[in-house]
Amino acid sequence: MKEFRTQFDLALKQWFVEKRQSFSASVQQDLLLEELFTAVEALSLSGGKRIRPSLVWLLSGFSLPLSAEQFRPFIAIELFHVFGLIHDDIIDNGESRRGVPTTHIVAEKFFDTHNKLGLRKKYGESMALLMGDLLFAWVHELLDTANLAPENLQRVKSMFTRMSEDVMIGQLIDVDIMSSESTSTERIFQKMKLKTASYTFVWPMQIGLALGNAESVLFEESATCGELLGIAFQIQDDILDAMADEALLGKTPMRDISEGQHTLLTQYIFEQGTAEQKQTLKQFFRTELSDAQKVELRELFEQSGALQFAEKQVDHYFEMAKNSIAASHFDENIKKELYLLVQEIEKRKK
Amino acid sequence: MKEFRTQFDLALKQWFVEKRQSFSASVQQDLLLEELFTAVEALSLSGGKRIRPSLVWLLSGFSLPLSAEQFRPFIAIELFHVFGLIHDDIIDNGESRRGVPTTHIVAEKFFDTHNKLGLRKKYGESMALLMGDLLFAWVHELLDTANLAPENLQRVKSMFTRMSEDVMIGQLIDVDIMSSESTSTERIFQKMKLKTASYTFVWPMQIGLALGNAESVLFEESATCGELLGIAFQIQDDILDAMADEALLGKTPMRDISEGQHTLLTQYIFEQGTAEQKQTLKQFFRTELSDAQKVELRELFEQSGALQFAEKQVDHYFEMAKNSIAASHFDENIKKELYLLVQEIEKRKK
Repeated sequence: MKEFRTQFDLALKQWFVEKRQSFSASVQQDLLLEELFTAVEALSLSGGKRIRPSLVWLLSGFSLPLSAEQFRPFIAIELFHVFGLIHDDIIDNGESRRGVPTTHIVAEKFFDTHNKLGLRKKYGESMALLMGDLLFAWVHELLDTANLAPENLQRVKSMFTRMSEDVMIGQLIDVDIMSSESTSTERIFQKMKLKTASYTFVWPMQIGLALGNAESVLFEESATCGELLGIAFQIQDDILDAMADEALLGKTPMRDISEGQHTLLTQYIFEQGTAEQKQTLKQFFRTELSDAQKVELRELFEQSGALQFAEKQVDHYFEMAKNSIAASHFDENIKKELYLLVQEIEKRKK
Repeated sequence: MKEFRTQFDLALKQWFVEKRQSFSASVQQDLLLEELFTAVEALSLSGGKRIRPSLVWLLSGFSLPLSAEQFRPFIAIELFHVFGLIHDDIIDNGESRRGVPTTHIVAEKFFDTHNKLGLRKKYGESMALLMGDLLFAWVHELLDTANLAPENLQRVKSMFTRMSEDVMIGQLIDVDIMSSESTSTERIFQKMKLKTASYTFVWPMQIGLALGNAESVLFEESATCGELLGIAFQIQDDILDAMADEALLGKTPMRDISEGQHTLLTQYIFEQGTAEQKQTLKQFFRTELSDAQKVELRELFEQSGALQFAEKQVDHYFEMAKNSIAASHFDENIKKELYLLVQEIEKRKK
């Protein structure tokens, strides 16, 4: 897995080098476009755990080394993720991601430096929206030029479409929940399954299996396992957003609260908290938070029992995911790699 | 051509019926998502001239009737256009398009009706952004399931990627010009070529030829012809935006001025106008315009000579386009149809 990641990062870097050449040729030394390209490249190259391409590779059974062409489906799934991040950060007003400024913030800075007119926020968002679109076009280009056998290509592309639908519909529900005074635990789970589990675990695993022409039982088993992992991963994300600091997180913390996002943590307080706890949480929703308020909120999550509840849920879902791996028909060495991956993800916990 | 359009509209309608079924199944009676889907369907079905699919069909040489599967590349190119409109309308704050409310406006209304919290404009834009992304995913699905011969599929998809790049880069330049105090005529032409000519004429023609395995000379000739038509079409659009009323236009008029968009019309005044004319135009840029101000602006375009200049340019480019058709190696009946199409587009003039 480690060897794959090293090679993957090199292949991704190389892809950006080549894409920059053709991109630069078509934009003819346009400073803005060069800066936006650089921002997207920096976001893509700066870390991230490469969970999605690693899963695709692991379940494909492909052996290393891979050619540049063979790397394309793996790069495609990672850049699909980056495309999603760019559009999500517009929606959520995120300012940093993976420790680098988000694309719309890079464009806003360009706006300032070059004395542009009009609304800087609108300018930044428009640029990031279009760069996201461009990246999505390149994702399809990567898949279409991966030189897959026709039947594999059809299957992988159809899975990509389903994955796109899931994540976009999940994100639509996410925005809607964010704007609702209250929601149900059921809807929070629906959102977690669609927007996280589906495209972080379920479809990458399915796509990997499809690339390797795996037996159908493995598709079913990995769908179950992926959903469990995805739910654990998202609750963990919600905990990190609430409890971790910016340095650890690589992005602005507590955006969930300031955007009005309902999570399992907030839902616990709204359903199980005291009247006073509910009131406190409600007044912080959809407001910009000072550092003191963030401290107060963290105490609220601890004292209400919301944090402990969420942590227990994370443990529960990771446990079930591991059990599903144990019970599956995967080869022992794949099982071993999957356990290692789960362990690595579990470590994200504070 | 007329027969194609009739059949195309039916096929498009049918595609939405089928997509609605699978979409509804996955969103489980979610009122918001149903409304957003309906908005995208209404925008797609409500008219438009179907220039892009008509051109693809005409140059493919395919004979009617076509099966549902055979219609998919044509539907893909039309929905790629609708995807672009949805994202453009977010960027340009457009409120109506083709006589129906834009997608972000539909979402804003949902926000009001259902007492959502937070910022309605942000909510509307986020929803429209995601619906656009979804549509772009479906565009690729349509192409991937059109059952094209492998070599045609590769070629068509590669052209789709180039077209996507052109229109997105063109739109990035468009937003940047919009936020600049001044620009050059050269950059306006670069924008027109990329964001309009390329995806309204050049690539649809290339894609049609690729579908029909045409001779290479026709690819070159249609690239020239498409670019000329596209420039004429865009200048005509700029004239319509400035001079036509909302009923004729089907969208909010004079958005170019209120968004600060430089066109050949405004550039003429900034370069050739009197000091007073320049001053007047400058003070209207990036402001919401009253009806009285719109009247004043129209007089400015007429009195400065900008309108006449732009109209002359339109005639010039249409003339050159017709000459390029005459000199081409297309069959006589395709030439005839192309002339008819050009005539029809020319009639959009006020």
